[in-house]
Amino acid sequence: MNEAEIVARARELFSDRIGDDAAVVGEQVITTDLLVEDVDFTRAIPLQFVARKSLAVNLSDLAAMGATPSHAVVALGLPEWVNVEAFLVALADAAKEHAIEIVGGDLSRAEKFTIAITAIGRAERPLLRSGAKPGDRIYLSRPIGGSATGLFLLQNGWPLDGERATSYAQRELAVSAMRRNVDPEPEIALGIALAKVKEVTACIDVSDGLSTDLHHLCDASNCGAEIERERIPIFSDLLSEGPKLGVRVQDVVLHGGEEFALLFTSSLRESELSARLGRPVYAIGRMTRDRAVMLREDGVPRVLEARGFDHFV
Amino acid sequence: MNEAEIVARARELFSDRIGDDAAVVGEQVITTDLLVEDVDFTRAIPLQFVARKSLAVNLSDLAAMGATPSHAVVALGLPEWVNVEAFLVALADAAKEHAIEIVGGDLSRAEKFTIAITAIGRAERPLLRSGAKPGDRIYLSRPIGGSATGLFLLQNGWPLDGERATSYAQRELAVSAMRRNVDPEPEIALGIALAKVKEVTACIDVSDGLSTDLHHLCDASNCGAEIERERIPIFSDLLSEGPKLGVRVQDVVLHGGEEFALLFTSSLRESELSARLGRPVYAIGRMTRDRAVMLREDGVPRVLEARGFDHFV
Repeated sequence: MNEAEIVARARELFSDRIGDDAAVVGEQVITTDLLVEDVDFTRAIPLQFVARKSLAVNLSDLAAMGATPSHAVVALGLPEWVNVEAFLVALADAAKEHAIEIVGGDLSRAEKFTIAITAIGRAERPLLRSGAKPGDRIYLSRPIGGSATGLFLLQNGWPLDGERATSYAQRELAVSAMRRNVDPEPEIALGIALAKVKEVTACIDVSDGLSTDLHHLCDASNCGAEIERERIPIFSDLLSEGPKLGVRVQDVVLHGGEEFALLFTSSLRESELSARLGRPVYAIGRMTRDRAVMLREDGVPRVLEARGFDHFV
Repeated sequence: MNEAEIVARARELFSDRIGDDAAVVGEQVITTDLLVEDVDFTRAIPLQFVARKSLAVNLSDLAAMGATPSHAVVALGLPEWVNVEAFLVALADAAKEHAIEIVGGDLSRAEKFTIAITAIGRAERPLLRSGAKPGDRIYLSRPIGGSATGLFLLQNGWPLDGERATSYAQRELAVSAMRRNVDPEPEIALGIALAKVKEVTACIDVSDGLSTDLHHLCDASNCGAEIERERIPIFSDLLSEGPKLGVRVQDVVLHGGEEFALLFTSSLRESELSARLGRPVYAIGRMTRDRAVMLREDGVPRVLEARGFDHFV
């Protein structure tokens, strides 16, 4: 079974609450994420970033639901090599930064460092993946492509300080992209703001990649989509400097995961929605009645396949 | 750091809600448990038991708090060998049996099968570890020693059907003890009933072993305890048949973990409390003002050390 098939089976067996970024139970919103060494991170990543990211991925799920985070529990599978004190201190800092209280947890030995966090928030009007309507505009909250670029560099042995770069611009890109990957910023404030705008109809966070997450949103809303390549906001300097670093820009933008930008839909136009939110958001296309997911480039539409991340493919 | 030191540090850094079997937030009670292959179970254990136990350990934590389980989320780290369908079906059955709804989850690849469940319940009067008073009677909910006996047999290669036994009585013990280990029964109904008896002052589940969990309870309540060896209820046939199977009976009874019996305190006497609960419970000693934890055997008291399970020793 691939990831989508397992989720579909779990939905059949367990609950039709399954399938969004987080589960809604009354006014509570609950999400859980598991990070495993050598799958989701390596020992080369400083522990404070691992701690921050393990919380951030959960907070991004709550953000996608428009929820205000309140508390979390943390289960750790600890191998000998982990400096527990350093991890706990970094996690406490991250929790404080995001005003979330870690109220409990569990400890176990493990060969690979394993972090399972469950975060709970509150939302009066939770944002679901299923609310988009044909004609709604499709939005991204911020430029994307940085996280997958950073991962590519890290996997190629780049140091976090970008010392291998041959120009200032390259180094700027490398450092900011690697930072985006190892220390992602969940869009908590934006998610809360979006939930207050009744014309915002659906939301998901870009964790698996724009193409795959747009498919998720279309599947849940029983719509299609057409987005425009030229309107997708791209991580700073990626277009100009990415190719020199060996980055396939089109791929990381369309399919790169772990962006934790929000992808959402609204009947409002870009200028009005940005004004209501007091910050820029980026309209990249429209939901369609037809179930196809299309990418228009140089005026020519083609099918956009879900080629983002799947743990099981 | 050992387990107690990590918990103490987490309590300092995160929240003074940490330290009970589950965390209390308003009327909600939240607990999380992580099970890892080759630490908490092996591939030799049928998957349906792994599924049931992964939920049961959480439900036992809720039981220790006197909470009624309501919902849970499940994060899975899946290696290739796991039959996901079989696991999910068994988990769904266990959830139905205990009337708990699994509302969400997360999936990841992992080398070792990893199961992190967070369960949420509700309690009007949560039972804490910290409420015991000097003079309170100390109770066990049921005979103990079975789970550690079962683990001992499994680790020695016994099949779950007990085929290696040389007598009927041995086989009865072996089968029931292994079953107790691989398919433990959380004391959910009892926990809920205890929370309604205002004279019940503190509670914990016996997950680390009687000696260690009694120390936890004494530490939290700032009391000591004296229990009587002869009053501890012992798993059926363990005294007579255990030694023939190579089981060190005194050790498994005093220090064997994963019993998931409840250990609790009350000012009520055994006959009255059993009558109020409509089922037997077993008074095994008294809380004391003195901070020492003592075991009285043949009339002679000696110090009872915490020699139960610690993942980090």
